[in-house]
Amino acid sequence: MKKIGMLTSGGDCQGLNAALRGVAKALYHELGKDVEIYGIRDGYRGLIEGDCQLMKPSDFSGILIRGGTILGTSRQPFKLMQVPDENNVQKLDKMKETCRKMKFDCLVILGGNGTHKTANLLSQEGINVVTLPKTIDNDLWGTDATFGFQSAVNIATNVVDCIHTTATSHGRVFIVEIMGHKVGWLTLYAGIAGGADVILIPEIPYSVDKVAKVIKDRNQSGKRFSILAVAEGAKSVEEAKMSKKEFKAARAQMLEPSISYRLARELGEKTGQEIRVTIPGHFQRGGSPCAYDRVLSTRLGTAAAQLIKDGNFGNMVALKDGKIVPVPLTEVAGKLKMVPKDSEIVQSARDLGISMGD
Amino acid sequence: MKKIGMLTSGGDCQGLNAALRGVAKALYHELGKDVEIYGIRDGYRGLIEGDCQLMKPSDFSGILIRGGTILGTSRQPFKLMQVPDENNVQKLDKMKETCRKMKFDCLVILGGNGTHKTANLLSQEGINVVTLPKTIDNDLWGTDATFGFQSAVNIATNVVDCIHTTATSHGRVFIVEIMGHKVGWLTLYAGIAGGADVILIPEIPYSVDKVAKVIKDRNQSGKRFSILAVAEGAKSVEEAKMSKKEFKAARAQMLEPSISYRLARELGEKTGQEIRVTIPGHFQRGGSPCAYDRVLSTRLGTAAAQLIKDGNFGNMVALKDGKIVPVPLTEVAGKLKMVPKDSEIVQSARDLGISMGD
Amino acid sequence: MKKIGMLTSGGDCQGLNAALRGVAKALYHELGKDVEIYGIRDGYRGLIEGDCQLMKPSDFSGILIRGGTILGTSRQPFKLMQVPDENNVQKLDKMKETCRKMKFDCLVILGGNGTHKTANLLSQEGINVVTLPKTIDNDLWGTDATFGFQSAVNIATNVVDCIHTTATSHGRVFIVEIMGHKVGWLTLYAGIAGGADVILIPEIPYSVDKVAKVIKDRNQSGKRFSILAVAEGAKSVEEAKMSKKEFKAARAQMLEPSISYRLARELGEKTGQEIRVTIPGHFQRGGSPCAYDRVLSTRLGTAAAQLIKDGNFGNMVALKDGKIVPVPLTEVAGKLKMVPKDSEIVQSARDLGISMGD
Amino acid sequence: MKKIGMLTSGGDCQGLNAALRGVAKALYHELGKDVEIYGIRDGYRGLIEGDCQLMKPSDFSGILIRGGTILGTSRQPFKLMQVPDENNVQKLDKMKETCRKMKFDCLVILGGNGTHKTANLLSQEGINVVTLPKTIDNDLWGTDATFGFQSAVNIATNVVDCIHTTATSHGRVFIVEIMGHKVGWLTLYAGIAGGADVILIPEIPYSVDKVAKVIKDRNQSGKRFSILAVAEGAKSVEEAKMSKKEFKAARAQMLEPSISYRLARELGEKTGQEIRVTIPGHFQRGGSPCAYDRVLSTRLGTAAAQLIKDGNFGNMVALKDGKIVPVPLTEVAGKLKMVPKDSEIVQSARDLGISMGD
Repeated sequence: MKKIGMLTSGGDCQGLNAALRGVAKALYHELGKDVEIYGIRDGYRGLIEGDCQLMKPSDFSGILIRGGTILGTSRQPFKLMQVPDENNVQKLDKMKETCRKMKFDCLVILGGNGTHKTANLLSQEGINVVTLPKTIDNDLWGTDATFGFQSAVNIATNVVDCIHTTATSHGRVFIVEIMGHKVGWLTLYAGIAGGADVILIPEIPYSVDKVAKVIKDRNQSGKRFSILAVAEGAKSVEEAKMSKKEFKAARAQMLEPSISYRLARELGEKTGQEIRVTIPGHFQRGGSPCAYDRVLSTRLGTAAAQLIKDGNFGNMVALKDGKIVPVPLTEVAGKLKMVPKDSEIVQSARDLGISMGD
Repeated sequence: MKKIGMLTSGGDCQGLNAALRGVAKALYHELGKDVEIYGIRDGYRGLIEGDCQLMKPSDFSGILIRGGTILGTSRQPFKLMQVPDENNVQKLDKMKETCRKMKFDCLVILGGNGTHKTANLLSQEGINVVTLPKTIDNDLWGTDATFGFQSAVNIATNVVDCIHTTATSHGRVFIVEIMGHKVGWLTLYAGIAGGADVILIPEIPYSVDKVAKVIKDRNQSGKRFSILAVAEGAKSVEEAKMSKKEFKAARAQMLEPSISYRLARELGEKTGQEIRVTIPGHFQRGGSPCAYDRVLSTRLGTAAAQLIKDGNFGNMVALKDGKIVPVPLTEVAGKLKMVPKDSEIVQSARDLGISMGD
Repeated sequence: MKKIGMLTSGGDCQGLNAALRGVAKALYHELGKDVEIYGIRDGYRGLIEGDCQLMKPSDFSGILIRGGTILGTSRQPFKLMQVPDENNVQKLDKMKETCRKMKFDCLVILGGNGTHKTANLLSQEGINVVTLPKTIDNDLWGTDATFGFQSAVNIATNVVDCIHTTATSHGRVFIVEIMGHKVGWLTLYAGIAGGADVILIPEIPYSVDKVAKVIKDRNQSGKRFSILAVAEGAKSVEEAKMSKKEFKAARAQMLEPSISYRLARELGEKTGQEIRVTIPGHFQRGGSPCAYDRVLSTRLGTAAAQLIKDGNFGNMVALKDGKIVPVPLTEVAGKLKMVPKDSEIVQSARDLGISMGD
Repeated sequence: MKKIGMLTSGGDCQGLNAALRGVAKALYHELGKDVEIYGIRDGYRGLIEGDCQLMKPSDFSGILIRGGTILGTSRQPFKLMQVPDENNVQKLDKMKETCRKMKFDCLVILGGNGTHKTANLLSQEGINVVTLPKTIDNDLWGTDATFGFQSAVNIATNVVDCIHTTATSHGRVFIVEIMGHKVGWLTLYAGIAGGADVILIPEIPYSVDKVAKVIKDRNQSGKRFSILAVAEGAKSVEEAKMSKKEFKAARAQMLEPSISYRLARELGEKTGQEIRVTIPGHFQRGGSPCAYDRVLSTRLGTAAAQLIKDGNFGNMVALKDGKIVPVPLTEVAGKLKMVPKDSEIVQSARDLGISMGD
């Protein structure tokens, strides 16, 4: 009898349920009554507190299309420091304790960057772990794709599309603020797919003056509207030069609730136009996964089940060059896959005439 | 030969192009070469400045599904006061001048509340006018429905749906800010359709304490998440008691860019939970009209063409009890169709257990 | 303690779960622990066989957005004849027996035309009944709208939209076969909303020659494509003259699996063009209800709960002139709401230049 | 001055306009007034007949989101045989003649398999050619992805989703016939994404008895419904053994208009259940491209412009391992990328418990 614990951790996204279903269906299909799957509630919180329950095969029926996660999720339980403090050590011990008590043969962990740091820690402490890469940010190292990303791109693109019709009718300037604190994949894709005129991402600091010039130039050439796709984490050239501490202090003093509102004010002053802001927010991570994410989640899920069957632990299942492969957690944890400034896709945006604000 | 001028005025919405197409196709079909249709650019601005151009039948092909308006639009050119000032009189004269110069037999005007005030003024000045009711706010007097409304409801509902999956996964409280400065139809419909737990609309002032209590009660009963559908124009009980002037002053001092951010702060303080905000904004008025709005726009459009053919001017075409009928502009102008506090649909929301914040 | 039995009968549609939720939430909200709701499986089959189970409030959570029906459904258990035969009498007795055994204070029945005949029969036999009007066909007498209809219109319209882009690119003729055996509301709405060139509905028999002429005329005027929205139940002028028996015999001999394939062959022969056929089929009745249907279902559901509370039985809740009102089952049962040939909406289609095939 | 001719050939799909826009915007952006782009009407037909027209930059505005192709398309002008016949040679000569007369520096050709054979032929005759891989079938050799595919997967998946809700409510068996005459990618992806129980694709011949057994086994285990995703080109084991000629003869004698209807009849006889058929047909290739396809089309488009600028002809732009690269036409033409029977994705489907009918 194999006992498997599954948890979802970090911000939720589309495809979590599809992935859980993939793992579970493949395990039940392969191992039949020789497997018990336990759902761990709310990510690592449930693992720390021993909040687990035995799942039935029917629990995984009909969830392929559902957003969110049937297991619940929570943010990371602790900041993972170079030198873990006492508090963290205690939490880690409790997680190991739960695994021991529950006699888990393996933990299946679905999460993003933070989640993978902890997963790697658990793995190094001797717990059998297999992970799946979820995040709308597409910023996980070691995989070409993460589920949730394409679904979020579809939603953000749809927002930009709709803003387009109203912008052209009124001859207005719009900012659409797109999720992504540290990386710009989502904004870049949705900006290209939605036909934005300006795309601002954290990896490429922007100059307000240059963005203002784009708007003014467009006006002069008779294009009365402009659409800016702006990542939550976009930074000005000035901010990019700050130390982390200075940056935090600067942002803490910012009057506006987010960068888009500040940018709207600044651009309004420089162009004389009224700039409107749209914040789709968590809308971007909800709802049913798109077909791409459902297939990806499912493939990753069944591949994870194979790894478990084969006793091949300490890996994340990943998409590499079109194939699903295991990647050691040690290679994944703690790295961020950012948009390379000189990547072909950024160049493609520039070739179209899109301004990256630099 | 009949000469018809068409314009779209005020905030754009879904179905404007479908309605223009309906009027035009029916006129061309009925009158063939005996009709010329002129597009007036950017609403009343174009009428004031004589910015018109002859349209071709092919201009109306393929636009049924397109959001926005091919004619462009702009906000009202003047505040219509009881006693019009000199500036306004001049603008009105210029509009009449354009009609005379262009030899328009009739103006077809698509717009909402503000637009209809001006349309009525033009009509009373002797200009032949037929209007169509457009607005996502559904607040036009004299018609059971306005095109744009159902499309906007669909979008806002979709946002609430998606927020639902993330809210339940995380056990969080979310505010979705929905358009509607003066009336709450859109918020009420999207709130019911999206399964919101609290719906705040301008017509029913809310008590922060009562809303906070709903959230706390839900938490205590094991429901870890709450979703609030909040109209842009929602007001607290305290604000509802203010004079218009006091209210404006109070809002001008508000730190947050909109009511949702203020409410998030207040509720956060009272419940101890983090409250997240989503602002779909102009997203709600963009994109392709839903089928309901396309059919409504088309029916209103062909009915307007019939009024023109019959020389039956000074009317808005309206939906009343399932039928398309003319309603005199004098009955429509200047009135707002608000959500009655004791209406069956509000009662339906209350029966479901939804809090209206009061 | 009130005991309520609920069933859904006939073809499923969007909004059934939303309506069940509306009834249940309102009953629980009003009556609290003084109500027990029983789900009857698979429509009247479950009532005949006593297949009922006590529902929990949580059974109605999260189902607002779900297509289908959580109770299951089945087609009518018997043909309701003028003079009921022995077999039918037995079934009716069994239904009454189930109500007696279960001590149901009221049956809540969601269904379309066939369902309402049986509901009326039960009501006349002394069973307390409240019904809700569901059908994608919009053909129920006594109500201005049925839930499911607008959702189906959206889907069928989307199909026509997509066919449009491929038809224009290739210069082809397409038939989209839309649901509706006896009435043409769905085809008429989707045809207008999708910009079809020809709309064929059961209420207006078509002439193949006239339809062929439309296609040829369009070709000659340079429009290389044509789109036909055809109801499943569309009939030729010749067929319309047949007796019911002759018609059945004629259709039984038809080589093609549906009218669209026959029409494609006939039009192909007459125009020399290849005609392609799309059959979205049951796709049209599946998936999440649109916002309109969710609000309508919910309002009807809470209104039904009110009728139960007030002991006002023998009624269908209906939408009339924008209000939810009770309509006696005796007025509803056995009547079909067809598209009037000379209705304003048909005229609107004609005014646009759409051919109705006559 | 560079003169570029662009054409779209073969069945249309989502993303064609986005790709045309990508090529054009990048060319105008890089070369400004030093480039003239000509649109060739209806694919190779226009090239043969010299039906070309000079495009303006504004022709490429607003088309990113539109389905179909603004240039029109047509099926292949000739069957490309090993030994080209006289007729074909004449057509080829006319194409070259058009290129010479128009002084095209390069032809940009968007198409699928058949299109690429001709493109390769033109290239070998000395015409400068750059091609882009479009097809909903995903069957082009040399590229990991073709635009149109993911959009079609989304549509077909949506159909399967909607069928799901009606199938579960009624306990019925449904066949959804999905496009793909020779390859099964679309059916495989939509089947997995939609949660089908059986997936039949051309690459894996099916046994009717085995499919019938799946349905019966599901019934016995209490699952009252089954959903079959069936490719247009699915073949039985018996048919797979036939020669091409025998197969054609057998299909010519088939009574039903497509494989799904035959399968429905056969399975109905073997299982005693009524089997219903849905044929979304050309619906699958229409409508707005999904975000994935818009980004892919755009990247391929700007990459094609680079190849033109660099004078790097005779290539298809392709996606390989996440990068856009040129692939020689000689490597692409005449090869079909089929679903490998033992591929990881087929195995993933089997691991889930999906029957492939074998």
